[in-house]
Amino acid sequence: MKLVSFEHGGSCHYGAVKGSKVVDLGSRLGGMYPTIIDFIAGDGLPIAKSIVENEPGDFDYNDLKLLPMVPNPSRIICVGLNYHDHISEANRQLNRADKGFERPMIFARWPESLTAHGQPIFRPKVSTQLDYEAELLAVIGKDTGRYVPANKALDFVFGYSCLNEACLRDYQKHSRQINPGKNFEKTGATGPWIVTADEIKNPENLDIEMRLNGKTMQKANTKDMIHSVAQVIEYVTEWMPLRAGDLIASGTMGGVGFARDPQVFMKPGDVAEVIIEGIGTLRNVIEDERI
Amino acid sequence: MKLVSFEHGGSCHYGAVKGSKVVDLGSRLGGMYPTIIDFIAGDGLPIAKSIVENEPGDFDYNDLKLLPMVPNPSRIICVGLNYHDHISEANRQLNRADKGFERPMIFARWPESLTAHGQPIFRPKVSTQLDYEAELLAVIGKDTGRYVPANKALDFVFGYSCLNEACLRDYQKHSRQINPGKNFEKTGATGPWIVTADEIKNPENLDIEMRLNGKTMQKANTKDMIHSVAQVIEYVTEWMPLRAGDLIASGTMGGVGFARDPQVFMKPGDVAEVIIEGIGTLRNVIEDERI
Repeated sequence: MKLVSFEHGGSCHYGAVKGSKVVDLGSRLGGMYPTIIDFIAGDGLPIAKSIVENEPGDFDYNDLKLLPMVPNPSRIICVGLNYHDHISEANRQLNRADKGFERPMIFARWPESLTAHGQPIFRPKVSTQLDYEAELLAVIGKDTGRYVPANKALDFVFGYSCLNEACLRDYQKHSRQINPGKNFEKTGATGPWIVTADEIKNPENLDIEMRLNGKTMQKANTKDMIHSVAQVIEYVTEWMPLRAGDLIASGTMGGVGFARDPQVFMKPGDVAEVIIEGIGTLRNVIEDERI
Repeated sequence: MKLVSFEHGGSCHYGAVKGSKVVDLGSRLGGMYPTIIDFIAGDGLPIAKSIVENEPGDFDYNDLKLLPMVPNPSRIICVGLNYHDHISEANRQLNRADKGFERPMIFARWPESLTAHGQPIFRPKVSTQLDYEAELLAVIGKDTGRYVPANKALDFVFGYSCLNEACLRDYQKHSRQINPGKNFEKTGATGPWIVTADEIKNPENLDIEMRLNGKTMQKANTKDMIHSVAQVIEYVTEWMPLRAGDLIASGTMGGVGFARDPQVFMKPGDVAEVIIEGIGTLRNVIEDERI
């Protein structure tokens, strides 16, 4: 099933995509699952599937104003330097010799930094160094507790999506901690939907590609990750539990703009697309922020 | 006013401290302000003050199981390397030459990492390098929006508290990003209460001290901060808005355990205290986690 969140009548709804339509699940299951996080945490998938199968869609998908699928996750756990070719290009550009790390490099995004498929990615007033990063996004389905071994970790994943983990490179380098550049409002695009885990045969073998204005800028397969999503969950749960709706951004591959010669940064009017096999295409246009 | 959150009858309440008693505000104002974040975001302080003045306390403070004052903040913004003596000791210990940064170094804690006054700080199974960090904690009172200048920033602060931003030093050094060591479950102690901003004459001139088993380990004044709380708010709102209940951990001063010779780490039975002028004493005992 493909899940989305969207705005309707001024409030936040969630639903399932059925062809060109969206079935409003929140209006049918809201008593049991008021929010999409409650739905994800619950056991509503079989009921939802039967609703989607038997009932017509309520809205045209293309007419909806989508929201980030999980509009307010408690945690967005991001993995840095998780593909060898990205480590090489980052080190070359930064004139560093590090060889990556035995443990996943973890940084944070906060929910305000997210935006949705079809919505703008905003370039802020204070920087022009807006770069793209194609990533596989995993959505946690239930409380993990602590100390989850990697071989059980994917049982806790509800589904997958695309992420354009767009960031501001100068703010990322203000200090040794990269979180600021990663947290500009409405820069991190998620979507076009969550594909539930039962429909993804092997999340560790998916082609992933980033296109800027139609030109391929990044291309890899999730099997090239240094730390798999399962291994990231094992590591994170050494220190804290994860909960339903938490997001894991699994890191980007070589080809980012700041490491190119000449450098490429996204500017107003640019079209950014992240395409992942079995999931779909996340598409956003860049705009200057209006603040 | 001094605000606390506490557990009573299996649910989370908030109240105000009155001498040795606590007045349950949630049970009186819950219709308007169901959670402490709603109370902080609202204009309930005058009503609450009049309740506290005119009504007797409901519970003995010492009998209560306190919770982190804001049990589930959306954001915990932490500042690293914000006192010169701590930068010196960290660089010496890590054999680095950096001189600090023009912009605040920002990292993240997630809510599960918090614990409360009087509750244990847990040393996890996977590390013995549990270190203390005394800090002034600021609590955001209302939506800031973006681009708040420093000279207006303290208008958005609801109150202040003590923080023992305890962390696991080996996990902090697994990669260049320190977030993992900073996010072990129930390690970051906050309390003993939020003192509302009207009762703190100048948050930029408060003595702060950390004692381990009665011995002074850190001692400074908040005027020694490199980036004040106001300047941190200015910087953060360049990239994202802050909301009521968000926490800002303003960084620790020299004297931490990992930079001492010999190194000092906290172990079960140790008593850690953070004392800030005009706020009070946050006290926690270290225990091994029971998982």
